[in-house]
Amino acid sequence: MEKLLKDNERIDDLQINNLKIIQNSDGFCFGIDSVLLSDFAKGIKKNSKIIDLGTGTGIIAILLTAKIIPKIILGVELQEYVANMAKRSVALNKLENQIKIINEDIRNLDKKLELGVYDAIVTNPPYMKQNTGLKNENKSKLISRHEIECTLDDIAKTSNKLLKENGEIYMVHRPDRLMDIMEIFRKYKLEIKEMRLVFPNPHSQANLVLLKAVKNANPFLKVDEPLYIYKAKGEYSEEILKIYNKN
Amino acid sequence: MEKLLKDNERIDDLQINNLKIIQNSDGFCFGIDSVLLSDFAKGIKKNSKIIDLGTGTGIIAILLTAKIIPKIILGVELQEYVANMAKRSVALNKLENQIKIINEDIRNLDKKLELGVYDAIVTNPPYMKQNTGLKNENKSKLISRHEIECTLDDIAKTSNKLLKENGEIYMVHRPDRLMDIMEIFRKYKLEIKEMRLVFPNPHSQANLVLLKAVKNANPFLKVDEPLYIYKAKGEYSEEILKIYNKN
Repeated sequence: MEKLLKDNERIDDLQINNLKIIQNSDGFCFGIDSVLLSDFAKGIKKNSKIIDLGTGTGIIAILLTAKIIPKIILGVELQEYVANMAKRSVALNKLENQIKIINEDIRNLDKKLELGVYDAIVTNPPYMKQNTGLKNENKSKLISRHEIECTLDDIAKTSNKLLKENGEIYMVHRPDRLMDIMEIFRKYKLEIKEMRLVFPNPHSQANLVLLKAVKNANPFLKVDEPLYIYKAKGEYSEEILKIYNKN
Repeated sequence: MEKLLKDNERIDDLQINNLKIIQNSDGFCFGIDSVLLSDFAKGIKKNSKIIDLGTGTGIIAILLTAKIIPKIILGVELQEYVANMAKRSVALNKLENQIKIINEDIRNLDKKLELGVYDAIVTNPPYMKQNTGLKNENKSKLISRHEIECTLDDIAKTSNKLLKENGEIYMVHRPDRLMDIMEIFRKYKLEIKEMRLVFPNPHSQANLVLLKAVKNANPFLKVDEPLYIYKAKGEYSEEILKIYNKN
């Protein structure tokens, strides 16, 4: 039997449904964006067939099982070591019936999976363009954060192929990329129907955006009330406490 | 000398710098969107050459003179009667040195004006697609509200031609059209650099969006803190009171 933890790995408690996650202290560790996305996607219908594009440690797939009842969540991860870590987290949580981790390049998924049959896609893709931002990171972090192996175009193209008619994609990203996102989603007939902006506090610029798009839908974008992380210095907003199951 | 008021017209006090506006009670009367846009555009530099595309009653051009010191604001209006009304408002406010009203179709402006020399464009275009929404209105209101004589594509195409390199366009619109706006602005190299969403109150969906785009700029969109009209039922937010010069 495979050892539960490898070098530099640790188990973190997700503080919801007794779920846990294995993370590597030297690698990409999940942030509030994953937590917010799994909550934003809680409208996904029961028994849906879901794909998590670029699942990483499996964090979104695992958190989703606390919010919805999926038929199956396929967590697709390019990096072999990271995919292996995700598999061990799934086993640790005894979620093998709900989550299947696939070590694959999302650009090859159209040759590996049935097309046009998935109900929903969730994704927390790399935020930064290939040649922007600091890059003094290890290769695994680089791939998670920069569009090296997975661009917005890859995400949208693949989603269009895998989703059924009117299938949904839920994505978290940076607001500074909104024009890129909207242009590319239009190109692949993914119409953004709902947007929620996330602000660190009520008097700051947005630093995350949650988007729901529907394949081949008519244009009409609903912009939800703002989501604040803190209501005052060091004090979480009521909604964040609720998302974290703290009240 | 031309009579100041025609049938069904009235003079409204704009409550700022003693400015006034002539409006026709049967026609399109200005709303909070024009007030918010003129405030959002207050970063326009001194001595700028500005065009107000679809100026209507001239409301935005007139309000802008209370916020900035322009070299000239050209207010372009298709409807002859409405343009005439705007001219009378400009004269009433003795703003002939700052505002010139032009009765012209914006689709012909590239043949009438010098190209590539304007510093800024402001515009409050028709919000609704030609075939959406109720249309039991008179023709003048229809033209103001629906994309009959002026589409987003017309606005963006004309702006691209008239603006100088790195010239700015400030627009107010409906958030439900954001994907259309972003797709069309990209097409005409107008990169949206700043976005502010306007919410009726802190727990409602956004109903207006203020956008600043820059011709041929690099992509990077800053999303400002939300703007609320009311902070509680019937009680204006501090910022709205400030914009209206009430505190």
